[in-house]
Parts: sequence; structure tokens; C-alpha cells
Amino acid sequence: MQYVAVRAAIHVASIFALYLAVAMLVPAVVDLYYGNDDWRIFAVSAFFTGGFALAISLATRGNAPAISPRFGFLVVNMLWLTACLTGAVPLIASSLELKFADAIFESVSAVTATGATAIVGLDSLPPGLLLWRSILQWFGGLGVIALGLFILPFLNVGGISYFRLESSDISEKPFDRFSTYTLSLISIYSALTFTCAVAYAAAGMPTFDAINHALTTLSTAGFSTHDASMGFYADNPAILWVGSIFMFIGALPFSILILFAVRGRLDALSDPQIRVFAGYVLAFVLAVTIYLQISQERPFFDALTHATFNFVSIITTTGFASEDYGTWGPLAISAAFIAMFLGGCSGSTTGGIKAYRFLILFELVANGLRRLVYPNMVLPVRYGDRPVEDELQRAVVLYISAFLVIWAVATLLLAATGLDLVAAITSALTALTNVGPGLGPLVGPAGNFASLPDFAKWIMALAMLLGRLEILTVLVLFTPIFWRR
Amino acid sequence: MQYVAVRAAIHVASIFALYLAVAMLVPAVVDLYYGNDDWRIFAVSAFFTGGFALAISLATRGNAPAISPRFGFLVVNMLWLTACLTGAVPLIASSLELKFADAIFESVSAVTATGATAIVGLDSLPPGLLLWRSILQWFGGLGVIALGLFILPFLNVGGISYFRLESSDISEKPFDRFSTYTLSLISIYSALTFTCAVAYAAAGMPTFDAINHALTTLSTAGFSTHDASMGFYADNPAILWVGSIFMFIGALPFSILILFAVRGRLDALSDPQIRVFAGYVLAFVLAVTIYLQISQERPFFDALTHATFNFVSIITTTGFASEDYGTWGPLAISAAFIAMFLGGCSGSTTGGIKAYRFLILFELVANGLRRLVYPNMVLPVRYGDRPVEDELQRAVVLYISAFLVIWAVATLLLAATGLDLVAAITSALTALTNVGPGLGPLVGPAGNFASLPDFAKWIMALAMLLGRLEILTVLVLFTPIFWRR
Repeated sequence: MQYVAVRAAIHVASIFALYLAVAMLVPAVVDLYYGNDDWRIFAVSAFFTGGFALAISLATRGNAPAISPRFGFLVVNMLWLTACLTGAVPLIASSLELKFADAIFESVSAVTATGATAIVGLDSLPPGLLLWRSILQWFGGLGVIALGLFILPFLNVGGISYFRLESSDISEKPFDRFSTYTLSLISIYSALTFTCAVAYAAAGMPTFDAINHALTTLSTAGFSTHDASMGFYADNPAILWVGSIFMFIGALPFSILILFAVRGRLDALSDPQIRVFAGYVLAFVLAVTIYLQISQERPFFDALTHATFNFVSIITTTGFASEDYGTWGPLAISAAFIAMFLGGCSGSTTGGIKAYRFLILFELVANGLRRLVYPNMVLPVRYGDRPVEDELQRAVVLYISAFLVIWAVATLLLAATGLDLVAAITSALTALTNVGPGLGPLVGPAGNFASLPDFAKWIMALAMLLGRLEILTVLVLFTPIFWRR
Repeated sequence: MQYVAVRAAIHVASIFALYLAVAMLVPAVVDLYYGNDDWRIFAVSAFFTGGFALAISLATRGNAPAISPRFGFLVVNMLWLTACLTGAVPLIASSLELKFADAIFESVSAVTATGATAIVGLDSLPPGLLLWRSILQWFGGLGVIALGLFILPFLNVGGISYFRLESSDISEKPFDRFSTYTLSLISIYSALTFTCAVAYAAAGMPTFDAINHALTTLSTAGFSTHDASMGFYADNPAILWVGSIFMFIGALPFSILILFAVRGRLDALSDPQIRVFAGYVLAFVLAVTIYLQISQERPFFDALTHATFNFVSIITTTGFASEDYGTWGPLAISAAFIAMFLGGCSGSTTGGIKAYRFLILFELVANGLRRLVYPNMVLPVRYGDRPVEDELQRAVVLYISAFLVIWAVATLLLAATGLDLVAAITSALTALTNVGPGLGPLVGPAGNFASLPDFAKWIMALAMLLGRLEILTVLVLFTPIFWRR
């Protein structure tokens, strides 16, 4: 790794931190509006973060390095780490007197759009802090889409990119095209968030809650302004259906909407991962609805509403809960466990393994079985109607392997802090797939992560970051070859 | 699939059933010796099984089909299924009045060398029945070694075979060589079992127990003659160490011993999977020993003895327990969960993912990460000092993918029968990796599978069979291409 690349990456990150410092003024204004003294905390945080970021950005000015995968990996890691640290500043400075580990946990959970919380007493938190958590998640969600659409496919980490195919664009005016796509993404994402907030409000949510929940619904992130999460609105099916619909939208590939907005093309709609994703959402929701009707004797519409909301929430890795589904009986609990792995589409705000990986794995297995019967058969791995490049196949296998090993290690480390088997397994999993809650009484939908030991919070924060950056982006930093000159 | 192949496969299976019918005379003689009336059951079972098998073998005589992967898969599945059904005959006929599902569960658990039991009251069972269970496991273990060494590598399902490389042997006199190797395997396996029985007896086990436990130790299978499993001998460290040593030996690749016996060569000892396997056994045993010393304040030797016995038992997929390690605290329980995945070496009697797959996966991940940094790097995947063929790499990925999907499906099906999350997850896992006990109060080392609903037992029996045949061998039967003419 060249010195110039490290310097340039720090420079990019410091400019990014400047933007985040400016963003801190939003909750400051809100606190001021609500007459809450906490506005000073945000103003001071903004001032010091901004000043520090400015100093570093000035100190690291210089020539741009050659664009290479290494530089790409470095910048992505640096940006996410910066967001996690910067996001924690107002939390540390706040009147909550959070421990350092708690503030970092909360910030990482926000920035990675995970939604696991270590704060109890959300209902009485100053509005500025609540909004800051929601804003961080919204930016996190935006970052994840950008990562999945524009960056990771180029780094061969994975993701189905419709933009990658447009070689004519890239060779002609790559940066023009890139900024068109980015602007289009931001507009669409903002417009959907606004629509979601209006829908929440129309369904009966107070404005402040509607804004916060819209920010964390579209980003499939899952922070709520209530300790009871969406259970606060459990008796309002309209709110739960609005939530279900916009979580589902957040889990779709944004390439569809961007390509439609920029070129009026809708052919990305035929992306086969959408069918797979919609298919398993439907399967889980229907199975759990029927199960709730039979085993809990709940009326159909009630069962359907809550099964839809909570399972769309888990599968899209959002993490809202309208009820403690830990009490729904063995099949629902095991289904929730399996659902935590799934995730949505590539190029969405979701975490987890994601539909396109299942599709490619399925093709690999089906072809592999056929080749056992006829060893000389040549069978291309297909994604819809196009062949899957070797790099992508390899990336899927890499990801799954690394996922399992890190899940196992995180489980052991969490168990070493004293968590029981279910809490350890599901906390590790929920962090790695960026869902939010785990399972069991301690960390399940009715619990939270406040009582966990600090060491467990650090492990989970690391797992959230790994999961968010599709694991490989972080792991690559730990290869000696990465740092070789 | 040609008619002649199906007919020939049934013919092979019926001859195999004839041998099993003869094997039933062993417990008959033992029951007669102990003056137990149950000898009649074995004699009658042998008579009817033998007669039925003879009739089928006569009815299916004919020309041998061409040797092909399809025929290989068909025969392997047929043989294992035949063993499972034949093994159940004396259990169904016995004085225990077992339900059909229980008898099949017990027989499958025996033949697949899993060791999960659905029978309560082992201590008062007739000796013939106990011996029958042990004999089935011993044959199962032998079958697994033969499968891993001589058959699955040729079917491209996986396994590291030192025999495959000997192309000179194969081209010259393949069947001579094959029978030399097979005879050598049977002799070594028998000699080790005899040594193990003598060692158990010398350590203080009564003769009948020593024979039974030797049969189920070498085969890393895990049936005991006591409800308390090896907990019956928990106060005798010598017995536990004998068990630990011979379970470990059963988990080593038998190719080493065969090649040494046949040609006096010891170079197979450098097989890198042995280092990986020994490495993770050591890591788990030491970690759990230290944990038991600290958290339970147990003396060092006591902690070492029980940590070694129980974790060697889990990792080698044997399934004996000298204590209820479910009470050893969160880290030990999570470690037991992770250990259930591991398994021993290829060409051993163990189930699970196995050391060679971890080695190849590690190489795939390490190479993959390097290629993310330098996309044009060409890096061969190596197993020790030889490159890993594409088929084997593909088989590893296939196996892991199929493993995870089947684990998830089995977990959901078991949960649907009412098992709680831990019981469902670990029962599915322990069946698929042929370990034996699960975790939690119901199916853990202190529990058993007797109280499970019949449907759960069928699911587990199927999972045991899938796991035993390395999953792909069974799955291939479900591809339409397999049955095409």
C-alpha cells in the first residue's frame, strides 16, 4: 500500500466527516424548536467534529492516487468507520451519560442500518437525539445502496449491477453518468422517504414519529422512537401495512427505479432476484399467518397483519417488531431464526445473504448435481438470461464461507461474555445480517442490548460493520498482500 | 436410468441383506449364552430376512450393467437403505414393543453410526439387542470408511483419496488391488476394535460393556449400553481416556494405516487434514478445560479428562457423554454447538463437515481475498503440496450449500412438530452431522429422542441418512436427469 493512497483515503473520509458535522445541525435545530437544551450538545459536537475534520482534510491534501481496488477498499472502510465514530460524538456528549461502548454500539447500529439498540427509555429521549439516530440510519441506508450499486460490483465483492454492463457509458463520460445516477438515487430515495412519512402520518402517526420511522423504514434499519418499537402502534393495522410496504420497497434493487428515472427503461424489473425475494417473503408470511391462526386461534386479518409486518421486517433486515414474536410458538420462532439469514435484493438497503446469492447458489448446486451424473457436462451458471461471471460465483462462495466462520467465532466470543446459546447465536447473527433484534428473552424483540457486557457490544459492533460491508470488503484489509507496497 | 442398472442394484443390495441376516445370528448366540429368550427373535428375524433376501437376489439375477456414476450412486443409496431396513427387523420383532418409527429411527441411527437413541431403559435391555445395535454401528463405521476411501472420490462427491492417485494400480489389476485394500481395511479396523475392547476391559469395564463400547467407539458412532452413556463410568478416568484415544483414532484417515500395512509407506501421514483436525481438537479441549477450571473451579486433571472425552466425542461425531455438558456454562455450550459441525478426516468413520473441507474452504477464501486486491492473480487451490482439482473444489461448495439448506429445512420441520428453537436447531444438526445428542434439556446429552413425535423421528432419520452419504449422494437421486434413460 502506498503512502499516497492512505493519505488520500483519510482526506476523503475527513471531507465526509465535515458533511456529517453539518448534518448535526439538523437535530440541533429540532431540539431548539422543541425548547430542549440538548441543542447545545449538537452545536458543540458539530463545531468540534467540523473543526477536527477540517484540520485533517487540510493536512492530508495532495495528489490523487491511482484508482485501484486497494484504494477502493481503503476508502469504503474508512468512510464507514468515520461515520460510526462521528455518529457517536453527540451520543457521547449527550445528557444520557452513555458509556463509551454503548455510544459506539448505538452509532454503529445506526450507521450500518442494523437497528439493535442499547438505549432503554427511548420514549423520553430528547427529540434531537432520536432524530440523530434516525438520520444516521437514513444516511446508512443510502450508503448501502450506493455501495451495492456503484462500488462493490466493481471491487468484485458481489452485487448484481445493471450499471456495470453499460460499458459505453463508462468509457465515454464515466463521471457524468455516475453523478446522474447518484443524483437520481438520492432524489428517488428522498421522495420515497417523504411519501412514507406522509403515509405514516395519514395512518395516524404523529408527525415527529412519522418522520423518524420513515427515515428508518426506507433504510430497512429499524430504530424506533419507542422502547416497544412498532408495538407502540400495534393496534393500528394501517400503520403496520404502511411499514410493511415501504420496508418491502426498501429491499428492492434501486437500479430499477434509477434506470426508470434516467432512461425510462423498465427492463430491470425482470431482475430474477426480485422473484426469489418476493417468493420467500410470501412463503414465510403465509406459513406464519396460517400457523398463528391455527396455534394461537387469531383472526385471519390480525394474523396476516402481524405476520406480514414482523416477517417482512426480519427478512428485509429492518428489525421493527409490532409484537413479541418470541411468544408465537416454536415454528414461528424457528422461522424467524431462518428468516434472519435471508435479506432482500442486491442494490437495496438490506443486509443478510440476499436473494441473488441464493439464486446463484441454487444454480451452482443444481448444475453440480447434474455433473455428478454426467461428469463431462458443461453447464454455465446463469442469472436470469445472462451467464454469471466466475468472479461473481467465487465472490458468493467466499462470502458464504466467511459469513459462517465469522458467525461461529462471534457466537463463541459472545458466549464467553456469558450469553446463553440462543442469545449468543442470534446476537451474532442479527449483527452480521444487520437485522436488529435477536431471539430469546434477553435480546429478542421484547428485549434489547443494554444489559450486555461491554465486550459483547464491541464484538457486535464489529460484526455489524463486517456484515454491512459484505464481510469481504473488511476481511481484505487483513491480508498481508493488501499492505504490501 | 436403465432397467438393468436398477435390477442389478437391487441384486447387490439383496446379497448384502443376506450377509446382514447371517450377522443376526451373533446376537442370537449371545442371548442364548445369557439364557435370554430373545434369541428366538434374532433367529426368526435372520430366517425371514435371509429368505426374503435370497428370493429377491434370485429374482434379480442377470447381466452386470456398465459401471457408471449413476450405477454407483444407485448402489450406495440402495445398500444404506437396505441396511437401515434390515437392521430394524429384530427391533420391530423384539420384546420392547417399539413403535415402527422408533425402530426405524434406532436402526438408521445405528447404521449411520450416529448414536442418537429413542430407547429409554438401555441398562435393562436384553444383551442380544444391545449387541445388535453395536454391531450395526460397527458395520456402519466400516461402510463409511469404505465409502470415503474407495467410492465417493470416484463419484466426485468428495474425499481425499490416496488410492485414486495410484493410476498404475488401477490400470493394471484394479480388482486385485481393491480386494487387497479392502481386506487390509477390515483387518486393521477389526484389530483396532479388539485392542480398544481389551483396553476398556483393562481399565475396568466388564467384558460385555467393553465389547459393545469398543464396537461403537472405533466407529465413532456412540451407542452405549447405559442410559447414562459413558456417564456410567464417569468416575473412571482410565476408561474415559481409552475412549478419547480410540475415538480420535477412528477419526483419522484409514488410508494411512492401509498404505502402511500394504506397502510399508508412511507418507500418507503428512496428509494436511490430520494437522487441521488435531489442531481444532486441541483448541476446543484446551479452551474448555481452562473454562471449566475457572468457571466451575474444577481440578485440572478432572477438567481435562471430561473436556477431552466429551469434546473429542462431539468433534469426532461419536456422541458419547461422560457428563451433562449442558450444565458446563454458556461458553462450553456454544463451543459444543460449533463443535457439532466439525467432524474428523476424510476416509475415517466420522460425519460432519470434516477437516479437508475446512482446509479447501480456507484456501478458497484466502486466494479469493488476494484476488480482490489483485484481480489478475492466478492462484491454484492447494491441498498440502498438490493442487485441488476443480471437481473437488466444486464438491466442497456443493456440500456446504446443500448442508445449510437441508439444515434450515429440517430445523423448520422439527419446529413444526413443536420442538423449541434449541432442540430443533441442534436435533437437525446432530442428525445431519451424525453426532448423536443435541443440546438443551430435551435432546441434550442428559436427554434422548424417545419423547419426540413420530414425524420428528422420520425427519431426523432422513437427515442422518443424508449426512451419512455426504448429502450429495442422496440429492443426486432427486434430479430429473438421474432417471432419464
